[in-house]
Amino acid sequence: MYPNLLVKRASLTPNRSAIIFEGRRWTFSQLKQEAIDFAEKLHMLGINKGMRIAILASSNPQLVTVLHGCMQLGCELVMLNERLTEEELLYQLNDSQPDVLLVDGLNRSLMYVNRLSFDEIIAAPNKPIKIDSEWSKDRTITIMYTSGTTGNPKGVRQTLENHVMSATGSALNLGVHPNDCWLCAMPLFHISGFSILMRSVLYGMTVSLHTKFNAEKATEEILNGTVTRMSVVAVTLERIISVLEERNLAIPDTFQSMLVGGGPVPLNYLERAIARNIPVLQTYGMTETSSQTTTLSSEDAIRKLGSAGKPLFFADIRISGEKEKGEICIKGPHVTKGYVGAASSKNPQVDGWLHTGDIGYIDDEGYLYVVDRRSDLIISGGENIYPAEVEQAIVKHKAVKEAGVTGIKDDTWGQVPIAFVVLKGQVTEEELKSFMKTQLATYKQPVGYYFIDELPRNASNKILRRKLHEYL
Amino acid sequence: MYPNLLVKRASLTPNRSAIIFEGRRWTFSQLKQEAIDFAEKLHMLGINKGMRIAILASSNPQLVTVLHGCMQLGCELVMLNERLTEEELLYQLNDSQPDVLLVDGLNRSLMYVNRLSFDEIIAAPNKPIKIDSEWSKDRTITIMYTSGTTGNPKGVRQTLENHVMSATGSALNLGVHPNDCWLCAMPLFHISGFSILMRSVLYGMTVSLHTKFNAEKATEEILNGTVTRMSVVAVTLERIISVLEERNLAIPDTFQSMLVGGGPVPLNYLERAIARNIPVLQTYGMTETSSQTTTLSSEDAIRKLGSAGKPLFFADIRISGEKEKGEICIKGPHVTKGYVGAASSKNPQVDGWLHTGDIGYIDDEGYLYVVDRRSDLIISGGENIYPAEVEQAIVKHKAVKEAGVTGIKDDTWGQVPIAFVVLKGQVTEEELKSFMKTQLATYKQPVGYYFIDELPRNASNKILRRKLHEYL
Repeated sequence: MYPNLLVKRASLTPNRSAIIFEGRRWTFSQLKQEAIDFAEKLHMLGINKGMRIAILASSNPQLVTVLHGCMQLGCELVMLNERLTEEELLYQLNDSQPDVLLVDGLNRSLMYVNRLSFDEIIAAPNKPIKIDSEWSKDRTITIMYTSGTTGNPKGVRQTLENHVMSATGSALNLGVHPNDCWLCAMPLFHISGFSILMRSVLYGMTVSLHTKFNAEKATEEILNGTVTRMSVVAVTLERIISVLEERNLAIPDTFQSMLVGGGPVPLNYLERAIARNIPVLQTYGMTETSSQTTTLSSEDAIRKLGSAGKPLFFADIRISGEKEKGEICIKGPHVTKGYVGAASSKNPQVDGWLHTGDIGYIDDEGYLYVVDRRSDLIISGGENIYPAEVEQAIVKHKAVKEAGVTGIKDDTWGQVPIAFVVLKGQVTEEELKSFMKTQLATYKQPVGYYFIDELPRNASNKILRRKLHEYL
Repeated sequence: MYPNLLVKRASLTPNRSAIIFEGRRWTFSQLKQEAIDFAEKLHMLGINKGMRIAILASSNPQLVTVLHGCMQLGCELVMLNERLTEEELLYQLNDSQPDVLLVDGLNRSLMYVNRLSFDEIIAAPNKPIKIDSEWSKDRTITIMYTSGTTGNPKGVRQTLENHVMSATGSALNLGVHPNDCWLCAMPLFHISGFSILMRSVLYGMTVSLHTKFNAEKATEEILNGTVTRMSVVAVTLERIISVLEERNLAIPDTFQSMLVGGGPVPLNYLERAIARNIPVLQTYGMTETSSQTTTLSSEDAIRKLGSAGKPLFFADIRISGEKEKGEICIKGPHVTKGYVGAASSKNPQVDGWLHTGDIGYIDDEGYLYVVDRRSDLIISGGENIYPAEVEQAIVKHKAVKEAGVTGIKDDTWGQVPIAFVVLKGQVTEEELKSFMKTQLATYKQPVGYYFIDELPRNASNKILRRKLHEYL
C-alpha cells in the first residue's frame, strides 16, 4: 500500500504551489479540494470506483484537476493522444472499453457511447465519496497506448508502484530541492508529461504547466529562475538553444536539469547546450517503464557522448544475446506488468525482464548506448512512429498492394516517415497523402511516397525496412 | 527485490566520496572493494550467507567496511551497543544466538563461543563469494535491541525494505542535494547512526564520520561548509549552540538540516538554535521504525513548538483510544515486522499498526505532539533507559527486596535515573552503586538511591513510578 498521493501531499505541504499556469497558482490544498469536488460530481453522474475513464483533452490546470479527480474516485485513466485521428482514437476506445469518455471544452468530433464533457460534469451536483487514505501498489493508474512490431497499438498498464518507483528513482538520481519547479510543456497524455505530475505530488514540487511548447516562453521562465527542471525532446531542446543563441545568453546556475528523452540527441545540440550552461541529461525511457530507465548525468554529457547513461537506483538493464550488441532488457519496479484489451494476454516480461526490441550495448563503465530503436522505430519530434502501423494504414487504400515505411533525417524533427508503395491500381502521391489524413495523426503521415515494383524482403518474407533507403 | 545497495551505488557514482574520516576519504568504489574483500575473508573463516553476525565496535571507517562486508556476504547484523556491560551484552548474544561475534581491535573483555577480531579476519586469505545483484526486500539487515515494558530487551528486526523506505521517505521530506554530506557523530550501532549509512548508499551521499561527538569539531565542519546535514539529540545540539554562542557565530545558509531526535527538545534550545541560523528539525522515531516517522520542518519550528511534525510520505500515524490524547500508533513500510529470540513470537503490529506505548495527540493541522514516552521511559542524552530493566538489575543484589526507578531532570543529559529501594538486608548507597557498575551501562546506573519502606503501587500491584517523586 502507498498513501493516497494527493491527499498525503496536501496534508504535508498544503500551502506549497502545485501548479502555475499563465500567472495563476494552485496550492496542493486547492488542487486536492478541486479534485475531490470533481470526483464527487463524476460520482453523481454514475461513475464509481474501479471504473475505467478515457480522457481526451489539452494540457491545462483543468485537465490536472480531472486526472486527480478520477484518481481520487479510484478510476483507471486511459490517456488519449490529442494528435491522433478519429480512426486511431476509436481503435483505442474499442480496445480499452472505458466506462466513459471525458472530453474537454474544445469541439471534439470524437463520439463514444458514454461521453461526457468536462463542462457537463462541472455543472452536476456533488455526491459525496469515500476518500481512500491508502492505495494499493498494484492499482492501475494509467493506460497509455504504444505500438509494437505488429502495428496494433497496445494499451500499457502503469500501476501506482510503477509511477512511485519511477519518481523515487529519479529523485535519488537528480536530487530534490525544496524550491524545485518543473516546466511541463510535454503533453500530459504522454508518460513524459504525466510523470511530472506524479513527481509533483511525491516531492511536493511545483509544476509550471504549458499547454504547448513555446520556445520563447520556456526560455524566459528558465532565464528568470521560475523553473529549475524541464523535460524536452531533441527538437524542443534545439529551439531553446536557438533562442539563447539569438539573445546571446546563458542560463543561470540555479537551473538544475534539462532531461532530454524520446530518442537520440545530435552531438551538435549537446555542445551548443553546454555552451549555454544548460545541464543536459540524456535519458532512455518509454511508456512501458513509466518514464526514465537510464539517465546520463550532465558531468558525463561530453565524455560519454551518445550514451543514455546508467540505470536509476531501482532499475537494472542488460543486453540479451551472445554478441556485444543486442536487445536492451529492463528490470525494475517501474516496468509495466501488462496490457489491456487485445494484448492483455501478453506478458511484457520474460523472466522478470522487459524485452524492449531496442538494440544497444553497455560499455565497460556501465553506460548504456542505444544503437537502434525497436522495430525500425521512427522518432519524429520525440513522438514514436511505428512503421508497421503506418504501413497498415496505407494498405487500406484500395489501389495499394503493399507498403514499406522508414524514416529519413530531418533538420527540424530528427526524422520523418516516407513510404514505399507497391500498387495494384491507379493512385497519385497527392491522393495517397489526402487519404492518409483521414487515417493517421499528422506526424505519422509520410512526407513522401515512392512507387516501386517490389518490397525488399528477407527469407521469411519480412520487410527489410532498412533496405528501403536503397530505393531512394 | 531491491538492488544490492552498495554495489549499485558504486556502479552509479564510483568516484564520489562515501566516507570522510579524520582527513581521509573513501569513494563508493573503494568502499565496495574493501567490503567485498572483507566478505571474502569472512567467508574463508567459515562464515556463509544467511548467518547471523554480532558486532561490537567503535564507529570508524573500519566498522563501516565490516558492516558493508557482512551485508555483501548476505549476513544479518546484530548491532551491539559498546556502552553496555558484559552482562547486558551476554543477554543479547544469548537471545539472538549469532553464529559469530566480531569485535574491533580495542581490548574487549566480552567472550563468546565463536569470537573473531577484525584483525584476525583481515589477516585471513580470501575465498571468493558470489555477489548478489539483488536483495530481497524482506531480508533482515540489522537487529537492534530495545527494551520494552517487561524490562527484557527485545531484538528488533530491521529489514531491507524498512531501511530503504525510511531513507526514501526522508529524502522526499528533506530533499537530496548532489553535494550533501551528513555528519554522523551518532553511534553506528544505533538506528540514528546506521540510518545515515543507508541514506549514504541510497542517495550517493558523503558521510563525515566521527567516532565520538565533539562539539568543537562538529561545529567547525558545519561552519566551514564541509557538512550540510547532521543528526543530534538535545544534549549535543545544546553543546553546538554553546560553541557558536561563545564564538558569537551563526552557521552558513549552505547547511540544510539539523535533525533532532531521541526525545523532547527544550524550548530554550530551539530558540537559541534559530538565533544561530540552525535549521532545526525535530523528529520522532525509534528502533522499531528504522529512524524517523515524523519530522517538523524548520519553518514550523517555532509556530508548532513542541511538535514532532508530520509523518513522512510513506508513513502514517494515528492516536488510539477514545480520548484526544492516546497511544501513538504507526503504520508504514518502515515499521519492523518482528523480533528475534525470546520475543520472536510477538507481533509488533496490531492490524498493521505499531502500538508504540508513547502517548500523544495530533492537532487539527495534522501535527503530532508526543506527550509522554512509553512506559515511563527515561531519556538521558538521547539514550533510552527503561526503568524496569534498571529495577531488575537492582533487585539482583541480595539485600534488596524491591526497587522502583524514575528519571529526574538534569541540565546536561535531560534526565538521569534515580532509584527507590526497599531493603531486606543491609547495604549502603555506595555498595549499591558499586554493585550496579557490574550490572548495567554507566548511563543506566541510578545517580542516587533512596531507601523507603514500601513502593507506591496501584490496585493491580503495578509500581506507580510517577508517584516516586513524592518520596524525594
